[in-house]
Amino acid sequence: MTISIIGIGLIGGSLAITLKENGFAQRIIGVDVNPDNIDKAIRRRLIDEGKTLDEAIAESDLIIVATPVDSMTRVLPLVLDKINAKQVVIDVGSTKTLILESVQDHPMRRRFVATHPMAGTEYSGPESAVPKLFEHKYTVLCDVEHSDPDAVQLIESLYQSIPMNIIHFDGASHDIHTAYVSHISHISSFALALTVLAKEKDEERIFELASTGFSSTVRLAKSSPDTWIPIFRQNRDNVLDVLDEHISQLSQFRSLLIKKDFDTFHKLISEANQIRKIIS
Amino acid sequence: MTISIIGIGLIGGSLAITLKENGFAQRIIGVDVNPDNIDKAIRRRLIDEGKTLDEAIAESDLIIVATPVDSMTRVLPLVLDKINAKQVVIDVGSTKTLILESVQDHPMRRRFVATHPMAGTEYSGPESAVPKLFEHKYTVLCDVEHSDPDAVQLIESLYQSIPMNIIHFDGASHDIHTAYVSHISHISSFALALTVLAKEKDEERIFELASTGFSSTVRLAKSSPDTWIPIFRQNRDNVLDVLDEHISQLSQFRSLLIKKDFDTFHKLISEANQIRKIIS
Repeated sequence: MTISIIGIGLIGGSLAITLKENGFAQRIIGVDVNPDNIDKAIRRRLIDEGKTLDEAIAESDLIIVATPVDSMTRVLPLVLDKINAKQVVIDVGSTKTLILESVQDHPMRRRFVATHPMAGTEYSGPESAVPKLFEHKYTVLCDVEHSDPDAVQLIESLYQSIPMNIIHFDGASHDIHTAYVSHISHISSFALALTVLAKEKDEERIFELASTGFSSTVRLAKSSPDTWIPIFRQNRDNVLDVLDEHISQLSQFRSLLIKKDFDTFHKLISEANQIRKIIS
Repeated sequence: MTISIIGIGLIGGSLAITLKENGFAQRIIGVDVNPDNIDKAIRRRLIDEGKTLDEAIAESDLIIVATPVDSMTRVLPLVLDKINAKQVVIDVGSTKTLILESVQDHPMRRRFVATHPMAGTEYSGPESAVPKLFEHKYTVLCDVEHSDPDAVQLIESLYQSIPMNIIHFDGASHDIHTAYVSHISHISSFALALTVLAKEKDEERIFELASTGFSSTVRLAKSSPDTWIPIFRQNRDNVLDVLDEHISQLSQFRSLLIKKDFDTFHKLISEANQIRKIIS
């Protein structure tokens, strides 16, 4: 099978290596607005060759759109305009509501499958692509009842080949859940980085003390604004809901510290410890 | 050299294995209010034997106090009461101001060196002790001008044997800096865990989506309240200052989302990315 990947960054590039290495794809064509990314991707052997969007679509069985989510809503309808009834198109975006809306009335809608392989790092670009990024993680398929069964089956076999665990959500639920388990973590890290960097202006030596706990909490603050602003923009309402809850939890801690109510604070930390049952 | 370690948890236990394995100590005596911890520490070969506080002090060249920081302010004066002019005592606490105050007028103050090896994990107890916890990390020595030079020299050689990088701070600066690079990370993680756990009540499936980014940000929320409440209590004023700053950064993000001012948000994320120069 020939696969085109539109957008050869962390996610597109990592899928490219993975699907070539495991034999799911015999040939991978890369498409990217930035010719540097194509050069890097060929040199790193992520893709076999670079082509224009039109050439790539014409030669592919499957087209994977892996651009930032704001481009996806523009690119997906253009790609669907050009495919035939046997080709399949997927996105791998971190948001779903607006992406699904962008194609909902398209005559080729049923050849499209909305997916979100839940994996990533704080790095971006083809230089950050890694082969085992997705292995044994979860991938979400959204609103598959609006896709042709053969297209869904192909995409399930693609993700099973990695292998990833597949779960199904409707687009709206996906966007609520990812606000909680991914988007708020990024907001929190960005804010924590700014908090600490503001202090650094006075005290250069502070970072000699930065411990592994600090690095772990702030790691995501290295993530690219070009990836994350479109996500926050598209999922604004859900992100605002979770952010309000998070600020209110922090304000509760603040008020307990002011009142020196360490007994209640102790109980809340014990409750927070229950996160153990979720993350290993 | 014989070393007694008072409090055989993550930090005390990890120091025990490390100093025995590298030959700095020939014999390690453990003291713990919880006899289970002594049993576990002997079975895990962290210590050679368990003793009472008085017996342990009488037989040791060096006494390391590694209890939670609220116990330290009680235990340190008791230990100094019982040592002779050749013995040395250190603490390994995450706060310094109140610990230094607890011994400032003690006649044996100069045999005490205040230290903080900056390393840890989200786990606690002797079962969580690991040999390479401290390797190549930073350790802080505080207010060494109030300690005898031979005592400081011994402690420097102890940390160099691990090896750790040694830096010097006064106690007050230490407590400000750790509020920024360690304590606020824990507050943030605890609050994030509560935010997400509150949501879980409605939506059990949410956690199938929990990604590695989420785990990294929330990992510290597994940390014990028995360790952290005493730290927050002792370092309350600094923690409140940083928490206020952090809440104000998050509130700024909130207001940008409400106003849909994604250009400013993009700039702030680019600023947050500068954390790259600090954490690798």
